[in-house]
Amino acid sequence: MPGSKSTAELYADYKIKVQKIADVRNALAVLGWDQETYLPEKGAGFRGQQITTLSTIAHELFTAPELDNILQALKGNTDLDPVQQKNILLSTEDYEKNKKYPAAFVADMSRVTNESYHAWIKARKANDYNVFAPALSKMIALKKQETDILGYEGHPYNALLNEYEKGANTAMLDTIFNEVKTALSPLLTQIEQHPPVNKDFLHLHYNRDVQWQLGIHLLKDMGYDMQAGRQDISEHPFTTSFSPQDVRVTTRIDENDFGNMTWSCIHEGGHALYEQGLPTEQYGLPCGEATSLGIHESQSRLWENNVGRSLHFWQHHYPRLQQLFPENLRAVSLSDFYKAINKVQPSLIRTEADELTYHFHIMIRYEIEKGLMDGSIAVKDLHHTWNEYYRQYLHVTVPDDVHGVLQDIHWSHGSFGYFPTYSLGSFYAAQFFTAAQKQVPELDNNIIAGNYQPLLEWLRTNIHPFGRYYTSNELCKKVTGKELVFGDFLDYAKKKYGGIYNF
Amino acid sequence: MPGSKSTAELYADYKIKVQKIADVRNALAVLGWDQETYLPEKGAGFRGQQITTLSTIAHELFTAPELDNILQALKGNTDLDPVQQKNILLSTEDYEKNKKYPAAFVADMSRVTNESYHAWIKARKANDYNVFAPALSKMIALKKQETDILGYEGHPYNALLNEYEKGANTAMLDTIFNEVKTALSPLLTQIEQHPPVNKDFLHLHYNRDVQWQLGIHLLKDMGYDMQAGRQDISEHPFTTSFSPQDVRVTTRIDENDFGNMTWSCIHEGGHALYEQGLPTEQYGLPCGEATSLGIHESQSRLWENNVGRSLHFWQHHYPRLQQLFPENLRAVSLSDFYKAINKVQPSLIRTEADELTYHFHIMIRYEIEKGLMDGSIAVKDLHHTWNEYYRQYLHVTVPDDVHGVLQDIHWSHGSFGYFPTYSLGSFYAAQFFTAAQKQVPELDNNIIAGNYQPLLEWLRTNIHPFGRYYTSNELCKKVTGKELVFGDFLDYAKKKYGGIYNF
Repeated sequence: MPGSKSTAELYADYKIKVQKIADVRNALAVLGWDQETYLPEKGAGFRGQQITTLSTIAHELFTAPELDNILQALKGNTDLDPVQQKNILLSTEDYEKNKKYPAAFVADMSRVTNESYHAWIKARKANDYNVFAPALSKMIALKKQETDILGYEGHPYNALLNEYEKGANTAMLDTIFNEVKTALSPLLTQIEQHPPVNKDFLHLHYNRDVQWQLGIHLLKDMGYDMQAGRQDISEHPFTTSFSPQDVRVTTRIDENDFGNMTWSCIHEGGHALYEQGLPTEQYGLPCGEATSLGIHESQSRLWENNVGRSLHFWQHHYPRLQQLFPENLRAVSLSDFYKAINKVQPSLIRTEADELTYHFHIMIRYEIEKGLMDGSIAVKDLHHTWNEYYRQYLHVTVPDDVHGVLQDIHWSHGSFGYFPTYSLGSFYAAQFFTAAQKQVPELDNNIIAGNYQPLLEWLRTNIHPFGRYYTSNELCKKVTGKELVFGDFLDYAKKKYGGIYNF
Repeated sequence: MPGSKSTAELYADYKIKVQKIADVRNALAVLGWDQETYLPEKGAGFRGQQITTLSTIAHELFTAPELDNILQALKGNTDLDPVQQKNILLSTEDYEKNKKYPAAFVADMSRVTNESYHAWIKARKANDYNVFAPALSKMIALKKQETDILGYEGHPYNALLNEYEKGANTAMLDTIFNEVKTALSPLLTQIEQHPPVNKDFLHLHYNRDVQWQLGIHLLKDMGYDMQAGRQDISEHPFTTSFSPQDVRVTTRIDENDFGNMTWSCIHEGGHALYEQGLPTEQYGLPCGEATSLGIHESQSRLWENNVGRSLHFWQHHYPRLQQLFPENLRAVSLSDFYKAINKVQPSLIRTEADELTYHFHIMIRYEIEKGLMDGSIAVKDLHHTWNEYYRQYLHVTVPDDVHGVLQDIHWSHGSFGYFPTYSLGSFYAAQFFTAAQKQVPELDNNIIAGNYQPLLEWLRTNIHPFGRYYTSNELCKKVTGKELVFGDFLDYAKKKYGGIYNF
């Protein structure tokens, strides 16, 4: 009985229970990693079943009344130290949120997700949004139901936003995406008036093995600990963690697209450095988990863009790159290389977008999700709405649904409220990097010298070690002295593209 | 309540419960595979914890009273078909055996196994059996206790033998190992009088990548389904299965020892073909599990030795091998190659022994284990006993404990009764292969032509599909018309070595 135990004993019981759940989830992550990297073709069926079983077990363990009893007994107990108190608070929140979902809803969601995913696959094959629309309607009806289950203040979409980024809401995101529209649009217009930048040489033949070696080299340079991780090949690059001591990245290599591997490798490396920097003594506990998706994305984007697409970064790496691919790059100056890898060009596909137009892609999805949740956008017209937004903000004509509304997997999975974290990640990254440049002596010179240790140390001190102890908002204020603002990203973008496009 | 359900409903419940346990065990197997192949160095600590958690969950699920209730309700129910009845019978046996172990014994065993393993490591470093002896004493005391827990007829060792090979006992093994002594000893004497065979060319430099390709080629030729499996590198080769649709092998490559990869690859391939041939519709149920360790080993050894070390096999493969390694093998005739790969030479280390002297290594371990269990051999003198046996049966002088009593990991793990299954595997293999030669038209000619399909089909019809439906003894009688006898192995050995050593 919890009542008869000391606080320390109860907290020890709590840790055992929660870490056991983490063990199961991390085992699931291993099965997932294997599925994307090494699983033989025919193994998929039974693997799916094994994953379902472990997921069910993790869910059962997490909803067990024994855990509830311990959490109730420890809630608000001030004998616990602040980190322990925070763990209990967050686990209680997680537990109570989990309990809100009626079994019937969970079963419906599972069924509709499956249906909707297969409809999306089918619609893509047919290149016809109408094939997806009926399943998407059901999904959206369920997501609306979910907003009621979870509860919200203000806009119903807030309930879903909060799932991916605690504290995010339409008030905050409307402000930010309005700035995207009003401040980035003129920038884009200025850039479009500039003669086009040549990046054809990035699409010559880049040998697979040399690319692989380059990727490993960059990861090691960044400070990714290869004794606590490894890189493998998968169709879609991702980072996965089984503990801070085993954080794995994957990449893909396109021999006709130099950028594909390079920046995805740096991007995943940024995610992985964060996971490797989480406190091992908080393994499996909330304070050992990433703050939020937005903060996670800030780490990948900071490395990918603020560092990895900077002139400073390539001042160090470009001479070596020319040696690795002499035929392709011997005649290309650093300046032309730098311009090419930062070429801004409005396009149809989000995942191929440059650093600037990317946020229009996200803003469009944000507006659509918000409209779907409050009913101002109809599911059946979604492809038209989509195409109109792309014409308006990105000045491109969507030729068909595969290059339009059917391009992302997210909605078919029921991930509504996820997209905004991608933009939040970039904006946090700019704000963090600006703070780092102020706080770390000689940061830029160290990057020019290929030394990322001072930057990593700053991240390891200011961002990585806290897990969910702070919310993203609290962390941002603590590190930068202010809440998330769009200004730092705008300054960064103006400076960077002003330099490249002469304005 | 089981009472209110139909037989079909109860059986469906049984399947769900048992297959859920299988899912957890197979997830554990994935974690184990990853640990031996790709786990980064620092990941070992948390991985160990994750493995412990999943093991505990599998144990809890298997000892849950709900499963017991269903088993009790279905036991002896003749509405079930014979395979279903067998599954219930075997699951009940497994369940009841599991229940026999008192929690205190399980805890003691876990502690002593850990202690004993570390003592063994330490003893090997010190090259001193006396460092291992105290922990081994404790282990043996526990194993004796285990024989009482499990119960036995006749010799206490029978309880442990039965764990690894159902139905095996000292009466049967005394008979078999007596024949090893009386029939193989004269053969060995005859061979020792022959001028030594040269196998130096097997230890020239064999390129790693070419060896790897050869291994893959051999596995595919054998009929190993690469879409339902894969090969990776590990320190110690092994086969592991997550379902019949995902059966993986590992190998190691020594560039100065051609045989190391080659026959371990064929050996693991034999294990893997068996696992790929188990019935998928019996996934996770006893009739979907390998018959026994002895039968498993029969499949690896049949391919490794009866096929893979035969002249017929290399008549097909040797010309290609000479092309792969022209500098090493151009001047070596097929006949000399065949003699070299079958060279008989008494030696100190079991894992490096040839096909013939191997069984003396096992026989010695069998005698020792039996003696330890009935007290006729004392733990403190074990190294002396060991060395004396090696002098007597293999005519070799053991120079130190690392090359003697400390060479195998098994006892430090508490695996007593395991070793005999290695010899049983070879003897089953000879008996099965003899039967196949009689039953499959043109079997030898097909092997000469590099076509293993008829052999695999025979195995897939006669051995693989039954799982634990038959015991090894029943299976052997069904396939060969008689119980396991030593005679087929002896005939095989006489014919093979008579050919090589001219007697």
